[in-house]
Amino acid sequence: MTTENANSPDFSKGEGLLPAIAQDATTGEILMLAYMNRESYAETLETGRAVYFSRSRNKLWRKGEESGNVQNVKAIFFDCDADTILLKVEQVGGAACHEGYSSCFFRQVTPEGFKVVGNRVFDPKEVYKKK
Amino acid sequence: MTTENANSPDFSKGEGLLPAIAQDATTGEILMLAYMNRESYAETLETGRAVYFSRSRNKLWRKGEESGNVQNVKAIFFDCDADTILLKVEQVGGAACHEGYSSCFFRQVTPEGFKVVGNRVFDPKEVYKKK
Repeated sequence: MTTENANSPDFSKGEGLLPAIAQDATTGEILMLAYMNRESYAETLETGRAVYFSRSRNKLWRKGEESGNVQNVKAIFFDCDADTILLKVEQVGGAACHEGYSSCFFRQVTPEGFKVVGNRVFDPKEVYKKK
Repeated sequence: MTTENANSPDFSKGEGLLPAIAQDATTGEILMLAYMNRESYAETLETGRAVYFSRSRNKLWRKGEESGNVQNVKAIFFDCDADTILLKVEQVGGAACHEGYSSCFFRQVTPEGFKVVGNRVFDPKEVYKKK
């Protein structure tokens, strides 16, 4: 049960894919959650930029590779079970979300349905022109 | 592709289990990540207390049911893909982690291995006497 001796996230869990939370290192805002495999984690450590594993595209996802909105990693943490990763990042461009919001969590649940609470930093149509 | 019209997290994804991040509503500290199914999400909305689904025990996990360290939910958000939940909570007892730390992310990755950066709020041996 104990993971006291773990020196890193345990990629033997979660079928090799662990959730990774990106938090703005300055403001504390939670920007997004994505997944990492061993390879993306290693590349993140090596380059200092957040690299995830895209489950939909089934390949490494170098965050910002298309939009330019890379994440410079300031610190990395992992949790008591060694199966979740926390990255404190500097979000280049001010927006982590592909929909143009600073955070992917721009919708708040209310009794009347969801309410958009985030501010749009960019227009996705302008940034992802190739699509 | 679009989820603009989603009114709630989409529990048809992730085989019915979605990651849920608990963040301290006051300090912005990320406390933990757990999982929710439709039932635990509904009970969370109804009671205003965080209820997760324990993958290891395969049942609802009313956070704090043993330790008393419940989480009072102040706000709920979900992300652009509607497959991750964010709870802003008041953590009763000051510690979310079963190891006695305020946050489960008490280990930081450093070039020399991990470093414990969290403060222990309680002694797990005292709190979980039944184990």
